[in-house]
Amino acid sequence: MTETDIVRHIRSLAEGGYRAKAVVRGIGDDCAVVRPEPGEDFVFTTDFVLQDRHFTLDTHKAGNVGHKALARSLSDLAAMGSEPVFCLVSLAVPEELSGKWTARFYEGLLALANRCKITLAGGDLSRFDKVIVDVMCCGRVPKGRALLRSGAKPGDSIYVTGELGASALGFATRRGRAWNRHLRPEPRIEAGLALRKLRVSAAMDLSDGLSLDLHRLCLESAVRAELLPTLPIAKGASESQALNGGEDYELVFTAAAKKKIPARLGGVAVTRIGFITDGSPGEITRNGQPLKPAGFDHFR
Amino acid sequence: MTETDIVRHIRSLAEGGYRAKAVVRGIGDDCAVVRPEPGEDFVFTTDFVLQDRHFTLDTHKAGNVGHKALARSLSDLAAMGSEPVFCLVSLAVPEELSGKWTARFYEGLLALANRCKITLAGGDLSRFDKVIVDVMCCGRVPKGRALLRSGAKPGDSIYVTGELGASALGFATRRGRAWNRHLRPEPRIEAGLALRKLRVSAAMDLSDGLSLDLHRLCLESAVRAELLPTLPIAKGASESQALNGGEDYELVFTAAAKKKIPARLGGVAVTRIGFITDGSPGEITRNGQPLKPAGFDHFR
Repeated sequence: MTETDIVRHIRSLAEGGYRAKAVVRGIGDDCAVVRPEPGEDFVFTTDFVLQDRHFTLDTHKAGNVGHKALARSLSDLAAMGSEPVFCLVSLAVPEELSGKWTARFYEGLLALANRCKITLAGGDLSRFDKVIVDVMCCGRVPKGRALLRSGAKPGDSIYVTGELGASALGFATRRGRAWNRHLRPEPRIEAGLALRKLRVSAAMDLSDGLSLDLHRLCLESAVRAELLPTLPIAKGASESQALNGGEDYELVFTAAAKKKIPARLGGVAVTRIGFITDGSPGEITRNGQPLKPAGFDHFR
Repeated sequence: MTETDIVRHIRSLAEGGYRAKAVVRGIGDDCAVVRPEPGEDFVFTTDFVLQDRHFTLDTHKAGNVGHKALARSLSDLAAMGSEPVFCLVSLAVPEELSGKWTARFYEGLLALANRCKITLAGGDLSRFDKVIVDVMCCGRVPKGRALLRSGAKPGDSIYVTGELGASALGFATRRGRAWNRHLRPEPRIEAGLALRKLRVSAAMDLSDGLSLDLHRLCLESAVRAELLPTLPIAKGASESQALNGGEDYELVFTAAAKKKIPARLGGVAVTRIGFITDGSPGEITRNGQPLKPAGFDHFR
């Protein structure tokens, strides 16, 4: 197989998938061409998924790697309250994985893409001694309505979608529902859209663990946070896995205390976990003690 | 240094650089937020630059790697006739390169970004055992006016900007102007904008060598090409380096034979190198012989 053959195969898979009206020209040119509608903003994110760092070949099938790579970026679109539009997928693989493995990677990725209505519009392909994936996703929101990390205000309540710690538990035990949650995270697109319509004050996704990600949200908003003693911990997970385990891909958000937040959003439960206060930016306390941002940091 | 420290440093560098009006929100949230103007299309491309594949640490300084990574993607924006808007930069580095090397990588990248008026609006950062870069660039064109590979028509003339083979010569000799061309390719942004205003019929950039890239353009346009015996070969380069050497990052384009094409565009010489004919799609002949697409293919 030559690069041209592989690209032709990916292109036929993509053209059989979901095709956003905005994508005027997809795979096959130097660039994809995208036509915005009047009165909308675009949001953009990009995320690595690297062999032996974010997955291993013996634990993750090719389709799982494709799913995870897209899910990580889609989760950022969800955090902005945006509707998915298109993605670009950069993939580098060792030569021996350029056939079946690569085809299955794209099948896994496109199954999620079609379900979340995002168009594969381009990317890059290269050979490397390990599998490297970088997925860029673009979403749309009405002008000026993207949910930011910087909007949390003293007095706001803090909420999370779903349960915390399942991915870390799955990573530790490699079995059951928790392992499946780790392998195939579900981006909270519908919940994010609902949050945007509710005009909540701030949102972000939980990729590196609540203690670190909420710390980052508080830094951007120049506020501090107080967590409640009870958290929606996934069955079997420890409190530490819920607070510091990464890759849950749930949404954490803040809203004025008086705003009515439904018990479920986009098919997933919502739990109030704390409140925002004035004070040292980024600081979090729980049970009267400071909570250290102990989530995942790539360079610590 | 933690990831948060490194991101803070990159953000301060980016915020000191060129800031496109369209970028409403840059580094610091889950996504960058970008506001299109009415009546414009956006174009998107992404390109890998991988250690020991596209560069080595002993031949390329950190700043050269940053320059090259952005230049590859900007070259695709040029090929569409688009004006640069913003980029996302995904970088993975070994721990020992997370300090000075990473700072200099971004300095090299941002020097080119500021010169080409493109805003660094986000990206991803990770640790890995080798340096991996993936740069996504976004450009703008008036609605429906992007230059495509698919517009070449029988009877059109074929042109290239600049000279061919310098990068391959530089790679072979590692000295002089040719080596500098290889280390620091110059994206043809101004020439691309001029081509768009001239409404040429098709364009693409030369990243993998003329014989392969022109073959791809002809495939997309469902035409064949006839090359003239004389080519604008860089001083000291061989005919094979000019035909099959990659990474020249010049533009190849087609225009109706009767269209007046200036001798220079955007400060670079333009040379007519052949013409488009009807026939087997993708075929190229030169001096009565078929020219094989022998440029760079990642999987051959």
